Parts: sequence; structure tokens; C-alpha cells
Amino acid sequence: MSEPSLADKQRFLAMAIAEAVRGARAGLGGPFGAVVVRDGVVVGKASNAVIANRDPTAHAEVLAIRAACAALGSHQLAGCDVYASCEPCPMCLGAVLWARPRALYFAATRADAAAAGFDDAAFHDTVSGRSVATAFVRERVPCEDAGVPFAVYAGLAGRVRY
Amino acid sequence: MSEPSLADKQRFLAMAIAEAVRGARAGLGGPFGAVVVRDGVVVGKASNAVIANRDPTAHAEVLAIRAACAALGSHQLAGCDVYASCEPCPMCLGAVLWARPRALYFAATRADAAAAGFDDAAFHDTVSGRSVATAFVRERVPCEDAGVPFAVYAGLAGRVRY
Repeated sequence: MSEPSLADKQRFLAMAIAEAVRGARAGLGGPFGAVVVRDGVVVGKASNAVIANRDPTAHAEVLAIRAACAALGSHQLAGCDVYASCEPCPMCLGAVLWARPRALYFAATRADAAAAGFDDAAFHDTVSGRSVATAFVRERVPCEDAGVPFAVYAGLAGRVRY
Repeated sequence: MSEPSLADKQRFLAMAIAEAVRGARAGLGGPFGAVVVRDGVVVGKASNAVIANRDPTAHAEVLAIRAACAALGSHQLAGCDVYASCEPCPMCLGAVLWARPRALYFAATRADAAAAGFDDAAFHDTVSGRSVATAFVRERVPCEDAGVPFAVYAGLAGRVRY
């Protein structure tokens, strides 16, 4: 399918924004929404539900990707586009990358999220090594068996790549 | 509770490594495992289950964090330590940051994962802007209503921060 037009992008982003508003008003979590689209059809849709689900990973993009994968019966989203009401945090950007859609479109920015009190921008800086915004210990520990899982995996027949 | 000793760290990392081996052998997904510990007690444990769950977000750390949050009834992991058999990808590092544990300890590195054929290092480079390893469209689209969710959120009473 051809790439979406600007009007298409804005239409699907308006749906993501509506999801964000709906979720925030319902007290599900932060004001963020996402939709996944394939061939012009919405195959996954979610608002942030961190508070309602008591799950820090229940961001809109993660939930929309999981819904789309469940709908499509696949661990990847080939040929899909992901629309997010706001630029994804590192967790959600990573989730998008692993899902391997065609494209990611977003409306607001990490700076907008920061202005609203969310740590997306700070966590981007932490993940990228530009700064460490939190009092957060991150340490590699020497372990003799660190390579064992990879060695076991290399020896398995019928591995499914992702 | 005091910080774990080196022997403690290695003991819990050995459990994460065992989870990684177990999951890979069972064909659940990639050879990665994670455990979440509070006060010396494991409160969450998982192996990567991307293939079995048909879910690109079903990495070990994400699943272990979700299990720990379910066990503790909270959207955050205050006072907990996260142990991962391998350095977390950007998605999982983001998940750890949002969960706000005390510390993250890991055994193998993103370079080890890359050598085993996984895109963790490439995705770190993409998320940090050092390089874009994939033919991946990421575009901000101008939307008149981009700020509406944040405005709605700011007007809500009883917001729960995360």
C-alpha cells in the first residue's frame, strides 16, 4: 500500500489524540494515545493505562502494538504504520523498532511531555548516555555463565528470528 | 535494605541466566531472562517470550517487571533491584526506568547480543540518534490538537503521577 497522505496522517493522529484524551479523562493513566494502521484500517488502538493496570509498561504504544499483534497473529507489524499522540519514550520507541512497522508518526514532542511533567525527555537522555537524570544504579556484574544462554540458543534447531 | 553483595548479585544473575536458558530451550523466544528482587526475595521472574506470545514487547525484563508489579500491586518497583541476563535493549531499559527500581544489574552486554544476531545495539544507536540502523520512517506531523491531551490532563483533579 502507498504511503499515507498528510491528510491520512493527521486523521489517524487525531484518533491517537482522541484516545489520549479518553484515557486521561477515565483516569487510566497519562494523556497519551496510539493507533496501529494497516492498509488504511486500524488494527490496534490504546490509551496509556499505567495507573489502571498498575503496570509501568502499559504505555499507549506498547498496548496498541500488543493489540495489533494479537489481531494479526504475528510478533511483527510488517506493512503497518504506528501513530502516537506524542513522540514515544525510549521504551515505546524500542517497542516500535522491535515490532518493525513501516513508519512511526507522532504529533506532540518529548519537550511537550516534559512540560506536562513526564520524564520521557529525561529518560531519552539517560538511555542515550547524554545524562543520567535519576539516582539510578546501572551496573554490569562479572558472571562466568553470562555467555551460556547465547551458546545454548546457537545450538537450537528451528529458531524463529525477531 | 542494604545493597546486595557481589555474591548476591551473581546469585540473582545466575537465576536470570537460568531463565534465559529455560526459555530458549522451550522455544519461547530469545535467550534472555530477568528477575526482580525485593528484600532478597524474588518478586518477578521471566524469560523472553516474543515468539510464544506473538508479542514483540514480551522481553524478559518487561515480563518480569509486569509480574513484579502484579505481585506487589503497584505500578512502580520502589526498593526493588532488576537483574537481567543481558544488558537491556532501549525498550527494556525504558521499562526499568519507568518502574523506578533501586538498581539494574546485568551480565552479558549489548555487544554479546549483537554477536548472537539480535538488534539491541543497533536499536540503542537508533534511539540515541547515533545512527539509524533500519529503513525506518520516524516523522513528526503538524497537528492542530497535539497539545489537547496535556491541557485536558492538566485540568483533571486527582491525577496519579508516574
